[in-house]
Amino acid sequence: MFDDGLEGPPPGHVWLVGAGPGDPGLLTLRAAAALRAADTVLHDALPGRGALALTRPGARLLDVGKRKGRAPWRQQEIADRLIAEARAGRRVVRLKGGDPFVFGRGGEEAAALQAAGIPFAVVPGVTAGTAAPAVAGIPVTHRGVAAAVTFVTGHTGEGVAATVDWEALGRGGGTIVAFMALTRLDEVALRLLAAGRTPDSPVAVVSRATLPGQRVLRTTLGACTLVARRARMPMPGLVVFGAVAGLDFTCPTLVPIERDRPQPHAAAGN
Amino acid sequence: MFDDGLEGPPPGHVWLVGAGPGDPGLLTLRAAAALRAADTVLHDALPGRGALALTRPGARLLDVGKRKGRAPWRQQEIADRLIAEARAGRRVVRLKGGDPFVFGRGGEEAAALQAAGIPFAVVPGVTAGTAAPAVAGIPVTHRGVAAAVTFVTGHTGEGVAATVDWEALGRGGGTIVAFMALTRLDEVALRLLAAGRTPDSPVAVVSRATLPGQRVLRTTLGACTLVARRARMPMPGLVVFGAVAGLDFTCPTLVPIERDRPQPHAAAGN
Repeated sequence: MFDDGLEGPPPGHVWLVGAGPGDPGLLTLRAAAALRAADTVLHDALPGRGALALTRPGARLLDVGKRKGRAPWRQQEIADRLIAEARAGRRVVRLKGGDPFVFGRGGEEAAALQAAGIPFAVVPGVTAGTAAPAVAGIPVTHRGVAAAVTFVTGHTGEGVAATVDWEALGRGGGTIVAFMALTRLDEVALRLLAAGRTPDSPVAVVSRATLPGQRVLRTTLGACTLVARRARMPMPGLVVFGAVAGLDFTCPTLVPIERDRPQPHAAAGN
Repeated sequence: MFDDGLEGPPPGHVWLVGAGPGDPGLLTLRAAAALRAADTVLHDALPGRGALALTRPGARLLDVGKRKGRAPWRQQEIADRLIAEARAGRRVVRLKGGDPFVFGRGGEEAAALQAAGIPFAVVPGVTAGTAAPAVAGIPVTHRGVAAAVTFVTGHTGEGVAATVDWEALGRGGGTIVAFMALTRLDEVALRLLAAGRTPDSPVAVVSRATLPGQRVLRTTLGACTLVARRARMPMPGLVVFGAVAGLDFTCPTLVPIERDRPQPHAAAGN
């Protein structure tokens, strides 16, 4: 029991809040305070729904993300609703997976609120870009191994992100953490090979990081497409490319994660 | 008041815990639980000390970071002490600024604990790499502007990080967030210019992010070295390079930060 003394958004304000990777223990104290205070929460199709359990009875929870059988809300609809809720004098939380400003389109929502003159604030969150590798025992930077880490989105809807210079990324030599890359893993791997990364370069796939059913797959750049497909790694998944993906700083007596290690004979077979 | 039901490290365990960028509201619920439970906390010279206020009376707090007039503990000393405290049956927290696996040398400490057979876990934190730009109203990724962000360390002790391919980074076109770059800003800027980034490319310097006395400086790649030096931006500081550094999604009615905007005539003068 612990009184953190933090308050949520005042009436008429919108807070863009990072929910972290899924484990509610990785919410920030400020995010928890915001959820407890909120009258209205607009949330994505979050990997973990534990965060929503913090809201008070009677709070309005609106799922604006993609769900089976229906499309997600359009960005304009989300912005309009945030503005309308704030103008009605409500305490509004826009809850986004990870960090609102890392592939979360939080910038677009902040811009819309700013243009409408609605008071708003951003509450940064723990990004899956560091948390997913961490649960697999992978430090995204490591002395003597990687002095840089790049977060990149695997696709933009129309294919592998066209605005990303994969060649420069590959040649850079740092760690690459690809978000939303599972469905485009073949293209991403080919581009990194074309940039000069070697087929035996380590790759780790982390699915449902920090949540029940979390899975880690270790493979190589040359084999990752086939191996990840066979392992049927669930979404959301994140892919780590680079030498750090070969590290495993987990505690053998504690690790609760399911490990997928491809059988050499199976990979060579059918 | 809120009972999160979370527990800290069991006796004999070590948790490597991210403290976030400084504001104690950006601690995770799990980090707060770890601090409340800890018998011993080994902490860096943290930018904000609010986190330590969560520890219980009687907990042993060891500052292993650099302070005026004395050197920081060596990595080996830190690892040895973590192991000794755990073997004595204590609940041990190793508190690190930001995220333990982002330029925090957490990987080295995890490796030492693993080798010694000490049960340990990693609690990811909010990295300053996203939080510092966020408080300045800068999303590190933004649709149509940046589909990749790289965190890189400005120096390794011997100068600008030699293992970083600054040329490839510069050509990549994504956002670059440089940690510990204030003292080497001249070298970093020159390398990015050599990689083809233009002198008018936006740069933002964020000092003491999320803490009292937080400051934001907007400048350009060509002018940043001179302008940052004149503004005497305090440590710790983080530098954002790329088109997103020209965005400012802050709420004009709320922003509590001190803004340094260089006077054109001053920059052109002496």
